[in-house]
Amino acid sequence: MKEEAWKTAVTKVEPNKLVLRGYRIDELMGSVSFAQAVFLAIKGELPTEREAKMIDAMLVSSIDHGVTPPSCLSARTIATTGAPLNAAVAGGILAISRHHGGAIEDAMKVLLEAVRREREHGKGEEEMADLLVQEYKGKNRRLPGFGHRVHTKDPRTQKLFQIAGALGIAGAYVGMAKAIENAIEKSSGKSQPINVDGALAALLCEMNFPSPLANAFFIMARVPGLVAHVYEEQTRMKPMRQINSRDHEYDGMPERKLP
Amino acid sequence: MKEEAWKTAVTKVEPNKLVLRGYRIDELMGSVSFAQAVFLAIKGELPTEREAKMIDAMLVSSIDHGVTPPSCLSARTIATTGAPLNAAVAGGILAISRHHGGAIEDAMKVLLEAVRREREHGKGEEEMADLLVQEYKGKNRRLPGFGHRVHTKDPRTQKLFQIAGALGIAGAYVGMAKAIENAIEKSSGKSQPINVDGALAALLCEMNFPSPLANAFFIMARVPGLVAHVYEEQTRMKPMRQINSRDHEYDGMPERKLP
Amino acid sequence: MKEEAWKTAVTKVEPNKLVLRGYRIDELMGSVSFAQAVFLAIKGELPTEREAKMIDAMLVSSIDHGVTPPSCLSARTIATTGAPLNAAVAGGILAISRHHGGAIEDAMKVLLEAVRREREHGKGEEEMADLLVQEYKGKNRRLPGFGHRVHTKDPRTQKLFQIAGALGIAGAYVGMAKAIENAIEKSSGKSQPINVDGALAALLCEMNFPSPLANAFFIMARVPGLVAHVYEEQTRMKPMRQINSRDHEYDGMPERKLP
Amino acid sequence: MKEEAWKTAVTKVEPNKLVLRGYRIDELMGSVSFAQAVFLAIKGELPTEREAKMIDAMLVSSIDHGVTPPSCLSARTIATTGAPLNAAVAGGILAISRHHGGAIEDAMKVLLEAVRREREHGKGEEEMADLLVQEYKGKNRRLPGFGHRVHTKDPRTQKLFQIAGALGIAGAYVGMAKAIENAIEKSSGKSQPINVDGALAALLCEMNFPSPLANAFFIMARVPGLVAHVYEEQTRMKPMRQINSRDHEYDGMPERKLP
Repeated sequence: MKEEAWKTAVTKVEPNKLVLRGYRIDELMGSVSFAQAVFLAIKGELPTEREAKMIDAMLVSSIDHGVTPPSCLSARTIATTGAPLNAAVAGGILAISRHHGGAIEDAMKVLLEAVRREREHGKGEEEMADLLVQEYKGKNRRLPGFGHRVHTKDPRTQKLFQIAGALGIAGAYVGMAKAIENAIEKSSGKSQPINVDGALAALLCEMNFPSPLANAFFIMARVPGLVAHVYEEQTRMKPMRQINSRDHEYDGMPERKLP
Repeated sequence: MKEEAWKTAVTKVEPNKLVLRGYRIDELMGSVSFAQAVFLAIKGELPTEREAKMIDAMLVSSIDHGVTPPSCLSARTIATTGAPLNAAVAGGILAISRHHGGAIEDAMKVLLEAVRREREHGKGEEEMADLLVQEYKGKNRRLPGFGHRVHTKDPRTQKLFQIAGALGIAGAYVGMAKAIENAIEKSSGKSQPINVDGALAALLCEMNFPSPLANAFFIMARVPGLVAHVYEEQTRMKPMRQINSRDHEYDGMPERKLP
Repeated sequence: MKEEAWKTAVTKVEPNKLVLRGYRIDELMGSVSFAQAVFLAIKGELPTEREAKMIDAMLVSSIDHGVTPPSCLSARTIATTGAPLNAAVAGGILAISRHHGGAIEDAMKVLLEAVRREREHGKGEEEMADLLVQEYKGKNRRLPGFGHRVHTKDPRTQKLFQIAGALGIAGAYVGMAKAIENAIEKSSGKSQPINVDGALAALLCEMNFPSPLANAFFIMARVPGLVAHVYEEQTRMKPMRQINSRDHEYDGMPERKLP
Repeated sequence: MKEEAWKTAVTKVEPNKLVLRGYRIDELMGSVSFAQAVFLAIKGELPTEREAKMIDAMLVSSIDHGVTPPSCLSARTIATTGAPLNAAVAGGILAISRHHGGAIEDAMKVLLEAVRREREHGKGEEEMADLLVQEYKGKNRRLPGFGHRVHTKDPRTQKLFQIAGALGIAGAYVGMAKAIENAIEKSSGKSQPINVDGALAALLCEMNFPSPLANAFFIMARVPGLVAHVYEEQTRMKPMRQINSRDHEYDGMPERKLP
């Protein structure tokens, strides 16, 4: 009653040989960046040179956002108990969920649907954006990917779109995101600019990432930030302290220019 | 009864400004690679150009090792139940522990101690390595970072040391690792070559990473691999299947050359 | 800019006093069973005597199901890496999700809806059950809580209903579950008896548990089983073994009678 | 190349039969309490009647301690992000670690060692306790299980020892714990009474629980509390709120008498 083997297409492991999506890992090492390897592992193909630059900038944009996000707080809270680093990081990742990081996937769905409808119905970008904003207004719902608690003009969004423009990656989805931004302002009189979630969503759409991987993208980008916080908690703070997220102060390196 | 604010040195967050270890994140974007930003987040300073190439190759080396490591199996097992991706990835990270990934930290401690004793006592590298091997033999313990279940001549180790040599990063710790490899063979007559854990340990020592971050290094490198497996499980497999790790077959891209 | 305090209704903590849902914990100790305290913590009120007996039997029914459930496999897989017990148990709980334990909540929703419609439309139980089975057949979907991979006549279901009958707890929901079981057999000619998920669902409905707590009920019941497996893995097995769930044998106490 | 089956002694699963540690689960249901089944699952044997009462009281004593423990805070923090209940509870369990709950195991080790030395060297209880307190003083370390941040006279400790006394369970370990309490006061002039961790440790020693299961005991007891908090967070609070643990107020049922 032999069972058929189950299949995997990620990595072939043989004695003294490791092949990721068709490429030997030892050949990838030194030839491609980590960001390129991440793209390969997830999507199955290496990015183009332009996509490689884009994904690098996107991962850098989300590497950390200080101590207030729930992923950081749950990771630090677990770290205060003397738990090992991996458990604290895992606890941080459990918080990268619907309301924290989740807007990237939601915004991808909105953009994918909007561009699809735009094409299907031969509507213009602006017309489609206006329609969408009206639809959401009618349902009394907020469009995901617009507005931010802290940043009115998120520097990461600006830079992501600037890089995307320079690389020729900005296409229909970035266009639609900007059209929606305009349509919101037109409709409500108030500015709700594209936030970093919305910008990442547009760019993941441009590079053809499936929307269920938006959460994965955010996790991969944020894990180093979580590690930095957990290690700081372990080495600098007293165990079992009550962490009040509002009551903190930055005392790290003063602002400095890139070398 | 105002409490004093607690301190963090990772990221300063102000409206429309995010500063990681002193550098504005929007300035980092497009200027440094994700691997460089990872190095910065964890260590507090940007890597040199040579260190940046090294850390990239190291992260790529550990991005995946197929379906048999326990981190992959726990992540896939959780994914079969319909759990969200972040929960499955978190469950994978919980398995990156003492016996899985843990040898990197153990090997770092051995190398740090060996080089310290070498310097303190004015011993030669070879002498120190022989002494160490005898000490472990006497205690009937295995030296962490040598030998591998699957790979007798791990292609990743070779490549890591080749890159480290070319970049001028290989120093006392790589030297000691190689001396220990020789001493083991001399003492036991059998070859137990440096494995990828041992090689990563030597290079993390060369770049002055604290040994408690070895686990963090491995987690950051492996998360994309876990994501790839979880997504494959979610999109390709039936829920609630019993996963027998031995009973699988690779059916992905055939081996191919880098473009 | 003083913030208003946030509110909690679970436990009041004062120096030398702990009050759970209004009762001093030191008064609860020795006066109520753990199962009664569980009921109180979750639902806010102590169970009646009959409910207390019912919830005890329900928790016992789900305490363990051997090594094949994914929660056990992920917990054991994590334990093989030398991770601490709490991490392995947490990894097990991450697998108590939609397809594993999730059927209890799904079945609760079906039963709640069916009884509501029955009452609203003045239908008889049998008529309502027939209608439901036809609706699911039309949508080509399976009714959750009926049929089992392993057990054709699940001894736990029998016993749960027998106890519920004796205690006078079996009411409209148990009646509806049985009516659906009959309707399935009538419609398909095949028996798909109520499984333990379906039985637990009916009884949680009878005791007025909110359906989103079905997952919680299963977690609370199963944690001791996970602990037993993790501890066995830690004390009896070699680290880093590849766990094939099908390839195991029971070598524990032979079957015995209760004292 | 057939592999030998691996062995488990927890539960035998056959079609229509489930046997936990030798007892059919359907026979256990209705005959033993959940606490008795927990004891059986973990220790392999049913508790005596007195042990059953003791373990029930112990589990009740630790079911919740309000919102400030890190396990509650990490669980609630994860819940604010829209994560499912099981993920939030798992994140809570990750915080039940060395400094949170961990003192039970530490205190068990101290008591086991003290009673062993007492017997080995024919010392009296008081003499042994004095010696221990001096040894810890000399190493400038605190004895685990004594003193509490909030409770100077923990009502749970009192009640646990009262029940243990009435049941005839209090023996050498409870005696030693009390002797140490006296010795601390004698030596330092300050009272550092046995806290609930110390009391649980003494009683787990009396019932012959292995010390590595102390963490498991606390997890099993606390999971219902975590569930109550997570559900309250999910149903009563706004998503993504910043949780300040100090800034809360109890607004649940006023204190009431047991019926």
